[in-house]
Amino acid sequence: MVLTDTLLDLFIETREHSEALCAPLETEDYVVQPLVDVSPPKWHLGHTTWFFEEFILKPHATGYTVYNEDFAFVFNSYYEAVGKRVIRADRGNLSRPSVKEVYAYRRYVTKALVKFLKSHPNAPVQELLQIGIHHEKQHQELLLSDIKYILGNNPLLPPYKTNFKESSDQNKGPLEWIPMDSGMYSIGHQGNDFCYDNELGRHEVYLGEYMIANRLVTNIEFLEFIKAGGYSNFEYWHAEGWDWVQRNKIQAPLYWHQVQGEWMHYQLSGLTDIDLNAPVTHISYFEAFAYAEFRGFRLPTEFEWEAAQQHLGWGERWEWTGSAYTPYPGFIKAPGALGEYNGKFMVSQQVLRGASIATPSKHSRPSYRNFFHPHLRWQFTGLRLAQ
Amino acid sequence: MVLTDTLLDLFIETREHSEALCAPLETEDYVVQPLVDVSPPKWHLGHTTWFFEEFILKPHATGYTVYNEDFAFVFNSYYEAVGKRVIRADRGNLSRPSVKEVYAYRRYVTKALVKFLKSHPNAPVQELLQIGIHHEKQHQELLLSDIKYILGNNPLLPPYKTNFKESSDQNKGPLEWIPMDSGMYSIGHQGNDFCYDNELGRHEVYLGEYMIANRLVTNIEFLEFIKAGGYSNFEYWHAEGWDWVQRNKIQAPLYWHQVQGEWMHYQLSGLTDIDLNAPVTHISYFEAFAYAEFRGFRLPTEFEWEAAQQHLGWGERWEWTGSAYTPYPGFIKAPGALGEYNGKFMVSQQVLRGASIATPSKHSRPSYRNFFHPHLRWQFTGLRLAQ
Amino acid sequence: MVLTDTLLDLFIETREHSEALCAPLETEDYVVQPLVDVSPPKWHLGHTTWFFEEFILKPHATGYTVYNEDFAFVFNSYYEAVGKRVIRADRGNLSRPSVKEVYAYRRYVTKALVKFLKSHPNAPVQELLQIGIHHEKQHQELLLSDIKYILGNNPLLPPYKTNFKESSDQNKGPLEWIPMDSGMYSIGHQGNDFCYDNELGRHEVYLGEYMIANRLVTNIEFLEFIKAGGYSNFEYWHAEGWDWVQRNKIQAPLYWHQVQGEWMHYQLSGLTDIDLNAPVTHISYFEAFAYAEFRGFRLPTEFEWEAAQQHLGWGERWEWTGSAYTPYPGFIKAPGALGEYNGKFMVSQQVLRGASIATPSKHSRPSYRNFFHPHLRWQFTGLRLAQ
Amino acid sequence: MVLTDTLLDLFIETREHSEALCAPLETEDYVVQPLVDVSPPKWHLGHTTWFFEEFILKPHATGYTVYNEDFAFVFNSYYEAVGKRVIRADRGNLSRPSVKEVYAYRRYVTKALVKFLKSHPNAPVQELLQIGIHHEKQHQELLLSDIKYILGNNPLLPPYKTNFKESSDQNKGPLEWIPMDSGMYSIGHQGNDFCYDNELGRHEVYLGEYMIANRLVTNIEFLEFIKAGGYSNFEYWHAEGWDWVQRNKIQAPLYWHQVQGEWMHYQLSGLTDIDLNAPVTHISYFEAFAYAEFRGFRLPTEFEWEAAQQHLGWGERWEWTGSAYTPYPGFIKAPGALGEYNGKFMVSQQVLRGASIATPSKHSRPSYRNFFHPHLRWQFTGLRLAQ
Repeated sequence: MVLTDTLLDLFIETREHSEALCAPLETEDYVVQPLVDVSPPKWHLGHTTWFFEEFILKPHATGYTVYNEDFAFVFNSYYEAVGKRVIRADRGNLSRPSVKEVYAYRRYVTKALVKFLKSHPNAPVQELLQIGIHHEKQHQELLLSDIKYILGNNPLLPPYKTNFKESSDQNKGPLEWIPMDSGMYSIGHQGNDFCYDNELGRHEVYLGEYMIANRLVTNIEFLEFIKAGGYSNFEYWHAEGWDWVQRNKIQAPLYWHQVQGEWMHYQLSGLTDIDLNAPVTHISYFEAFAYAEFRGFRLPTEFEWEAAQQHLGWGERWEWTGSAYTPYPGFIKAPGALGEYNGKFMVSQQVLRGASIATPSKHSRPSYRNFFHPHLRWQFTGLRLAQ
Repeated sequence: MVLTDTLLDLFIETREHSEALCAPLETEDYVVQPLVDVSPPKWHLGHTTWFFEEFILKPHATGYTVYNEDFAFVFNSYYEAVGKRVIRADRGNLSRPSVKEVYAYRRYVTKALVKFLKSHPNAPVQELLQIGIHHEKQHQELLLSDIKYILGNNPLLPPYKTNFKESSDQNKGPLEWIPMDSGMYSIGHQGNDFCYDNELGRHEVYLGEYMIANRLVTNIEFLEFIKAGGYSNFEYWHAEGWDWVQRNKIQAPLYWHQVQGEWMHYQLSGLTDIDLNAPVTHISYFEAFAYAEFRGFRLPTEFEWEAAQQHLGWGERWEWTGSAYTPYPGFIKAPGALGEYNGKFMVSQQVLRGASIATPSKHSRPSYRNFFHPHLRWQFTGLRLAQ
Repeated sequence: MVLTDTLLDLFIETREHSEALCAPLETEDYVVQPLVDVSPPKWHLGHTTWFFEEFILKPHATGYTVYNEDFAFVFNSYYEAVGKRVIRADRGNLSRPSVKEVYAYRRYVTKALVKFLKSHPNAPVQELLQIGIHHEKQHQELLLSDIKYILGNNPLLPPYKTNFKESSDQNKGPLEWIPMDSGMYSIGHQGNDFCYDNELGRHEVYLGEYMIANRLVTNIEFLEFIKAGGYSNFEYWHAEGWDWVQRNKIQAPLYWHQVQGEWMHYQLSGLTDIDLNAPVTHISYFEAFAYAEFRGFRLPTEFEWEAAQQHLGWGERWEWTGSAYTPYPGFIKAPGALGEYNGKFMVSQQVLRGASIATPSKHSRPSYRNFFHPHLRWQFTGLRLAQ
Repeated sequence: MVLTDTLLDLFIETREHSEALCAPLETEDYVVQPLVDVSPPKWHLGHTTWFFEEFILKPHATGYTVYNEDFAFVFNSYYEAVGKRVIRADRGNLSRPSVKEVYAYRRYVTKALVKFLKSHPNAPVQELLQIGIHHEKQHQELLLSDIKYILGNNPLLPPYKTNFKESSDQNKGPLEWIPMDSGMYSIGHQGNDFCYDNELGRHEVYLGEYMIANRLVTNIEFLEFIKAGGYSNFEYWHAEGWDWVQRNKIQAPLYWHQVQGEWMHYQLSGLTDIDLNAPVTHISYFEAFAYAEFRGFRLPTEFEWEAAQQHLGWGERWEWTGSAYTPYPGFIKAPGALGEYNGKFMVSQQVLRGASIATPSKHSRPSYRNFFHPHLRWQFTGLRLAQ
């Protein structure tokens, strides 16, 4: 019974946190999708709700009435079911359901789920609930990144919260190299706490000797790369990265603007001076790699990172690793629709480790693997050097 | 003095009408842009306001204070000025300024203009004002078409107004051919009322004998084209039209949906049965041309249409003509930014004549020339046959 | 009998001329397609041959054996028949049939047709033959333009014939304005000689007074436009033209290269200095229009051009007119496949009048209407002013 | 001195082999580029020649005269130098230099290099020569694949050599699982023979227990996947793979055609029945992965493959592995232009191991790593299962 109560608390806290993240928004901010990888905030709010309805309430809560049959079409992210009407329906083109309706939908499902939980569902359903909760937490990360993109690409550059602080003092100080011994290291999730299927299959990895930086690369260090012409010297770049730089005329991290000759950047608090000693952020894998080449170092692999993690500062930024996103030995997809969760993305993406200011409580752990395509940088992505 | 008062009334009525058109919308509906040719309603509201501010208040109203310097960047449709920040700013990606701010901007400019008008501006400024008013009326046509597209492409198919009637009884009855004599006809605007520069240069055109239909093609007639395989027989189509049909898998006019084997269509009142005797609408020039080929007839030229216009039903739909949009003899662009109004679009477009249910009062006249690219059909476009 | 003999001579001369045009080519030059609008020379040679085989020999020559059944798929430009194998087969990707095979195919069909002609086919077949001959002549125009594009876009800039002269002295001398009276003019083909269906329907057109230039715009005049910043001032351009200039970074006519600060151009004789008094050529309709705007004049309509044609220098360049390509009153498509010849292109294109150095003998006439999309300029296109 | 002689033999044999591969071609086949990843055969012949000229003869052979300064622009695959003329010059659009000129260029450079080699160049130059030779061998693999694509996508499906045999009997027999122990394995090139930089950094990798198939998947096994609806069940596919299948309407491996209900495939000998017991080939990584999912197995990693390689049949096909292409620990780029050879491709690609019928003599070895983007399949790619 204890577990159910804990879950109930976690569920409620999670639901509330999503809504708290959206509290500073105008209605209009919930609607737009300025980049294909960004989803409208109201879509996140609806989709995470639909997940609970579709995978828990519909199959397991006796007598549950679906809120609105059409919402499955709007809030399903998988789209494998073919709709009966052919309609141009990209997420950012949908003005309806309105924000008010989405909140009503949330309240309806939250309430139904709280009621359902009080009936003490069995362990498999509790597990589904845990997935649903962590699914919503994962969307909270995206939500804050997406909000930043929506506001930070508006020509008026409206702040999200004028007192929002994107970086702590945690990463400050001189760069030091942490030496790591060669040997066998255990990689993957340990224990009974929640984790995703892509962290499972704890296994041994042999690592040669290496050194890893005690902190992330800072804005001032990255500025040196810019000033040294790093964005215009193809030697530092992957061939694909160089194409990306040239086609998109990239000259700096995302959200950096040159204002009267000085670099400034948009933060959730508005357009501000660059905090020189804070970690550089909003860079693509291509930029992370090029920076490391420029310095004559490299990115750590995800195994080197995990092996060293207890020595590293934590929670500042997502960190790009040199590892492509592939399955661990013995990776097994869950059966059914939940099996689509991770495995189907295991190609052409790069692993990130760590966590960021967008990561909600109880969502980060040493074995957690995030992943994005190498050109993406709207997440709070940074880098750490290794050699 | 009379003129100023009339203008003042017309100005106020026009401003109010734009807002009345938007009254049934949710805040979210003001924001999205599901097609590149569709603008978000709040953009129309802001852009028409900016036009008065930029071309009348700023240069002519002593002591006028610009509402917000950044709005010029957001609401200018011309974009020839290069902004100082490079930002991905398509109209449908802009959540700010909010709807509330746009209405505040409207009130501010409307009030300033009313005050300014009371100072009895001179004739050239009155002329500018007239252009501004008709510019807003032109946007009202777009506004209703855009609203229909926004709602009619939402999978929930929300009605705009459940009692909105898109067609009258005006077009009913059997098709009859009106015979027209050969001879010289005068084409172009006559008199002192307002018109656009593209209607000027009244001139003689010689027309051979022809016949023109007394009414528009109806839905039931168009259904025969569909049922006879008109969309899959390349013989009826322009080569570009055939490409368009195939690439976009076009099978019916826009907003038509096959529901359990029956064709229905989305109207501003919601999804409804097709009114068989109403004019077919939301067809591209390609479809209009193909239909005429199928019947062994053709579209009238814009000159044939104008010569016959007093015999024709009026105001039901925009009608595609067989004329490409080119300047009249003696066409002269206005100097400065207003010269960009019409002339620069005189290539690759097709002329439409008439008016539609989206046309506001005092905006239609026999010489009025609308124009769109041949593949577009989100306007209330129909067709009339000639031979 | 006379007619058959004349046709036979014309047929043989035409077949030989196509091959003479290709004589200076290397085998490799016959194969490539560096622009979607350009066809490989061997395709022209095969397609014009297939036309005779498909429309004359197969239906009318008793006992004729098709040379190779697969060639219909390769050399048909219409593609409405769906092939049984799905293969990526753009023209420029086809190395086979080889040039040698195409010439063998030509000899086979030419010989069969000569033999067939000696059987004195009836008038309808003679008419088909005339279409086939003029179809090949039309392809000869394209052939020379395409050859120029293939060689002129090769970084080695190989000449076609080192002694090839692209311009005559015909256009030289000061610009003079020819005054034309207002009144009725007859437009369209007259007489019994061959013409295309788009020239038929001779009809009256009323023209107001106008003036038309006695010669084409020259390179030196166009250079003034370039030097005055014509390519960077949006005021002179259609909106679509301005987009085209910016997206493609257009700064001069096609084939012009700035070599050590001086403009040179590729001609069929190789890279040479610009002949300042020769007509400017290889310009798009957008450029022609912008030049006329720059000078404060305009392009003539095709009717103005035809009405004035006996006063104009002839045969130097194709001339862009201000007329969009639409059907004449009473235009009737031929039945069957030949009906696809012209009518289906009557949208989004602009009419050219006159002829060019690529025009073969007996192919130009006052009523001839050529047409291209407004952005194209690989033809020998120029312009003449009107006012 | 021995080394120089061996190198000389290897050099001459390699140069002759490229030309022997092209011997069955028509001149036209050397020119086209039907897929962006495919290069025209004459480009391969020229580019491999330019490599020797640029990196050996120009810097090291005293008195060497460059054959044609313009060829560097045409045959350089890197394009980082910006040319002085802006010309649309995709490889498949270049009819010049002609095939004859390319062969003359080859003879000139081959002769100059043979002469130069007789002067006994020092070890670093010998190393460059070795790279040049293996660079040409690598292009020979591409050459045969590209030739197959050029001929196999021609609607006439011309054979390359009617007696060419694409598969041996080597792979036949029942599938057996080879058990492999867990433990440390050494990975990477060993010894002093030639290898690429991406094979260096021999290092220890720990592998858990696994089993690997004794042979590749055969056509008959793959047919079962097709017949079981493998191409229409999204569960087997990566999300990107599923997009690729749907966008390109993929239904079978490349070169398979359904002829009267039976699958046939184009081989270098022409269109033939499918050899059911031969390895399936011309599949993308997406297809290889989906097939393994369908069977409930997986692809081996490149480390598993290398650890087991002495137990595996060899040389039939390139085999997709489950490993993304990333650098080995301690990977160091060569300085200068040669440093661009491998490192800059180490993102978004998948490793292939083994060799194929396109692999020339002395070019395959256990540590050799090939790599392609996951959607590509014009190489002779196959797969082997692991579990």
